[in-house]
Amino acid sequence: MKLEGIYPIVPTPFLDDGCLDFASIERLVGFMAGKQVHGLAIMGALGEGHKLTEGERAAVIAKYRALLPRNMGLVVGVRAPATDPAVMMAVKAQELGADAILLGPHGVQKDAALLGYYQRVSKAVKIPVIVHDYPAVTGISMSVELITRIYESADNISTIKLEDPPTGAKMLALAKTAGTGLKVFGALGGLYALEEMELGAVGIMTGFVYAELLVRMYNWCQAGRWEEAASLFYDFLPLNRWEFQPGIGVSLRKRVLKQLGIFSTARVRHPGPDADDKAVAQLFRIVRHLQQKGYPLADAPA
Amino acid sequence: MKLEGIYPIVPTPFLDDGCLDFASIERLVGFMAGKQVHGLAIMGALGEGHKLTEGERAAVIAKYRALLPRNMGLVVGVRAPATDPAVMMAVKAQELGADAILLGPHGVQKDAALLGYYQRVSKAVKIPVIVHDYPAVTGISMSVELITRIYESADNISTIKLEDPPTGAKMLALAKTAGTGLKVFGALGGLYALEEMELGAVGIMTGFVYAELLVRMYNWCQAGRWEEAASLFYDFLPLNRWEFQPGIGVSLRKRVLKQLGIFSTARVRHPGPDADDKAVAQLFRIVRHLQQKGYPLADAPA
Amino acid sequence: MKLEGIYPIVPTPFLDDGCLDFASIERLVGFMAGKQVHGLAIMGALGEGHKLTEGERAAVIAKYRALLPRNMGLVVGVRAPATDPAVMMAVKAQELGADAILLGPHGVQKDAALLGYYQRVSKAVKIPVIVHDYPAVTGISMSVELITRIYESADNISTIKLEDPPTGAKMLALAKTAGTGLKVFGALGGLYALEEMELGAVGIMTGFVYAELLVRMYNWCQAGRWEEAASLFYDFLPLNRWEFQPGIGVSLRKRVLKQLGIFSTARVRHPGPDADDKAVAQLFRIVRHLQQKGYPLADAPA
Amino acid sequence: MKLEGIYPIVPTPFLDDGCLDFASIERLVGFMAGKQVHGLAIMGALGEGHKLTEGERAAVIAKYRALLPRNMGLVVGVRAPATDPAVMMAVKAQELGADAILLGPHGVQKDAALLGYYQRVSKAVKIPVIVHDYPAVTGISMSVELITRIYESADNISTIKLEDPPTGAKMLALAKTAGTGLKVFGALGGLYALEEMELGAVGIMTGFVYAELLVRMYNWCQAGRWEEAASLFYDFLPLNRWEFQPGIGVSLRKRVLKQLGIFSTARVRHPGPDADDKAVAQLFRIVRHLQQKGYPLADAPA
Repeated sequence: MKLEGIYPIVPTPFLDDGCLDFASIERLVGFMAGKQVHGLAIMGALGEGHKLTEGERAAVIAKYRALLPRNMGLVVGVRAPATDPAVMMAVKAQELGADAILLGPHGVQKDAALLGYYQRVSKAVKIPVIVHDYPAVTGISMSVELITRIYESADNISTIKLEDPPTGAKMLALAKTAGTGLKVFGALGGLYALEEMELGAVGIMTGFVYAELLVRMYNWCQAGRWEEAASLFYDFLPLNRWEFQPGIGVSLRKRVLKQLGIFSTARVRHPGPDADDKAVAQLFRIVRHLQQKGYPLADAPA
Repeated sequence: MKLEGIYPIVPTPFLDDGCLDFASIERLVGFMAGKQVHGLAIMGALGEGHKLTEGERAAVIAKYRALLPRNMGLVVGVRAPATDPAVMMAVKAQELGADAILLGPHGVQKDAALLGYYQRVSKAVKIPVIVHDYPAVTGISMSVELITRIYESADNISTIKLEDPPTGAKMLALAKTAGTGLKVFGALGGLYALEEMELGAVGIMTGFVYAELLVRMYNWCQAGRWEEAASLFYDFLPLNRWEFQPGIGVSLRKRVLKQLGIFSTARVRHPGPDADDKAVAQLFRIVRHLQQKGYPLADAPA
Repeated sequence: MKLEGIYPIVPTPFLDDGCLDFASIERLVGFMAGKQVHGLAIMGALGEGHKLTEGERAAVIAKYRALLPRNMGLVVGVRAPATDPAVMMAVKAQELGADAILLGPHGVQKDAALLGYYQRVSKAVKIPVIVHDYPAVTGISMSVELITRIYESADNISTIKLEDPPTGAKMLALAKTAGTGLKVFGALGGLYALEEMELGAVGIMTGFVYAELLVRMYNWCQAGRWEEAASLFYDFLPLNRWEFQPGIGVSLRKRVLKQLGIFSTARVRHPGPDADDKAVAQLFRIVRHLQQKGYPLADAPA
Repeated sequence: MKLEGIYPIVPTPFLDDGCLDFASIERLVGFMAGKQVHGLAIMGALGEGHKLTEGERAAVIAKYRALLPRNMGLVVGVRAPATDPAVMMAVKAQELGADAILLGPHGVQKDAALLGYYQRVSKAVKIPVIVHDYPAVTGISMSVELITRIYESADNISTIKLEDPPTGAKMLALAKTAGTGLKVFGALGGLYALEEMELGAVGIMTGFVYAELLVRMYNWCQAGRWEEAASLFYDFLPLNRWEFQPGIGVSLRKRVLKQLGIFSTARVRHPGPDADDKAVAQLFRIVRHLQQKGYPLADAPA
């Protein structure tokens, strides 16, 4: 299993009574596998990982592991306000079959405290640990210097999920200090996916229901056919931009997945928020625009 | 002068010695007037208004007023940490010929304190005051309830520049509480411009060098030709998205304006930051892609 | 059990290997019971509740419940990033014998989202729920209006732990909107304990190793002997002020408890931080100053 | 003029119509000079410097310079969102006779951007520049490493006003990295003044109306009579703690100065906030308690 390519961050489905919805997970895995993605990332911010109990987390991880084809990687998000619980979560995820940990920072904005956290958690597991650099969600800024020190001091940390825009400038700076050994996944809803691939990103790890578009773009990039990659990216950008709207990203994706018959409900755990009907309608208008351009995208029943 | 349509937020040019560059302002006004925009908004975040002295502010406002054709509106940004200086800035801008004030909040996250600020500043002037709702830059969240109270309690406040995403949901909520008398300008780099126009926005007030694209889209919208508006918007979205990158938006626009011969330098007042060469190159690649699609956009000399 | 009086917030002891230290909990309960406090509050910020696993939480709660004399109340801190996990934590705490829940907010700064959270969690349990209003730690500001709405809309919420300074002004404002039915615990290390008692606080719920001083002050206040209460408070203020230092409060109290023979280690779960030796020495200098004034305080062995 | 000792941060008085109140400034200078303080610091957060226009700033600085006895130092606060305006403000303050600049950071949390700012502003003036390290007010954290680099790279920066608690730990850390050449002023309302003096602080620069108490404590410290210093400090701590309450510190000091006949109004520029009557009454109760202990403090007329 290589930690490269397109890894959709997926939402966690719930039933109407608030319980986990394992049947929807099963449909989702099939849906995504059919798009030829390289793996799935669960329990990220989009996965509402922080809204689950420990038992629920374990059940979800185990379910994905059981369902996922062996050629698809399973990345599990871990983030905790302190090092010990993060270690326990990471160890548990490894036990349950995670291929890699996506580790978000605790909430203390001090370099030494962050370095120690990444060192200790990564040491506690044998699988790769991906640094999650997403200040808009975590509230923590990680400088190029800090990330470089984390990378250099931990054997199983050689990848970062970079969501601190402008991402191009940070990629260039990291390439100077950490070299090419530090691999970068683009994210941020794929808003800068093309430009990140041009700068050497090894893949995109983000929530986008229509992940087949990212897969196709990735394949053009791998083949060095940048013109085709660019044309494709510019075409689908209206759609992934819309999915990525702040605040309602989780709800919007769940509503789309429900309309596509993958999820049985669009329930988001309180305090939500929920996307409005208009936002969903505007999304499908973009889908239909792309269909008219010839993209065979799944649509909601009329 | 109607407060509607496309109002580019423009950057403030400096000479190499750090002084204001009035010749570049003159070229910029001509450049923008040629795009048929409805007005200009100066001294916003993009205009580095907070980096100017009072004397510099006054000189810039007066220059724009002198240069601007009478059919183009002049919106002047005001934001201060307290009410008295905001009043003085607003009064001064009115004296110098501003058609409207774009008023950002002080830094105290209390409804009563914000309401009092908007009431007092708006009372001190006779021209319209636009509420600037941009939490990512100001750090202040304004709820639908608060904005409604501001709107209802101040005679010359009937417009909001809405940059608190998801903007659609907030527009719908404001329409319910404040009614259609409260007019909305979309912004956020135009990232959701089409959808905002669909929901009844009266215009877009944002930084985008290629403002003629927004003007054309706006005209399609006004004509009720939404299909053409959508096609056009989807086409140029890669470009305005790229200009709007967090942190480097000011620098990137200045570098483009310099390459287009409008600004004599791309200098941003410290602490910047500055966009890297790669980001500029990636921008012009998108420009050329649009040219190939038939859009007659200004390009950098080869 | 009345929810009034002096409720020390207590730290959670760990062994050198990082595991829970139940023997130290037992000594701590005896130590605090000997000071005639009215109850204990566990799993607050000082209790490192957010650094424990669910199993550890349950074990700690059960241990305190088993050890605590029946005349002492047990308050259990609950705070989660979403409503469902907070409900589960609260229900579990009730099952394990908590007398009340101290409920901190999730991290979404929206009144409706906060109101819904407090309503749902409080509805899920039968024991009283105390609103924890501590912006410096939670990052969430709760206005007087919001707290009043929470109080009015939930049957078992009639107490607030108020740590949003200036506390006097907020107490006065709450008394106007919510009336005297809303009871207030002072906190913030007891920094304003006297003045809060004067304004009608029903008690103080805060971390202070030398809690017997707060108990004595509380008794003077109850007896209407405000002069004695004030003299006493002014005398011990240097000490509780020092314990309450930002960042190192947890570590400092643990080091004091270790020196007093109550805790077997002063271990704080990473990322700490740890108090320095000098801060501990400066603390005991204040203790000795109070001893010389005639206060029979426990001291570290020379 | 030595940059050592007790430097009260003073509030800026306004008349009822909102204009500057120079007569009150004159009384204040006499009032403070009578307490034998070593200098005054104006235009800090307490001085509402950010609520004044440039013209008002200049008038206030000139007034203090004209009034201040030559043996008293004049420190002028400067803080701006960018480097150029900070340079201009600092140069202007120097022209008007400031003995030193107290320089707060811009709002960009990046080490390189902060280092450049301190270097450029300090280079633009010949008088000493004091680093203002006060995250609770500025929102900017400055690490020990950053402060050390600033200190080492700017000739006229050798002093810091340290308000990042716990202050003792940071003083110890700075002593290790920067050595004894970096001088520290304590602040934070004098809440940790004794302990900071013990650790080598060269003085206290903070708002405290009863500054004679800090002067007397400072003199005991200078004489090596730590017992007397401690007794005195513990006695007055209830008072300076009360003055230092978050949010209402400016208003409370102005109300006290008004009651003492120094200021003609207690007006704070909107959005305030204003201290309530009860808080003022509670303050004078502490004053009377100290009077009964034998301290000859100024009191409000009965």
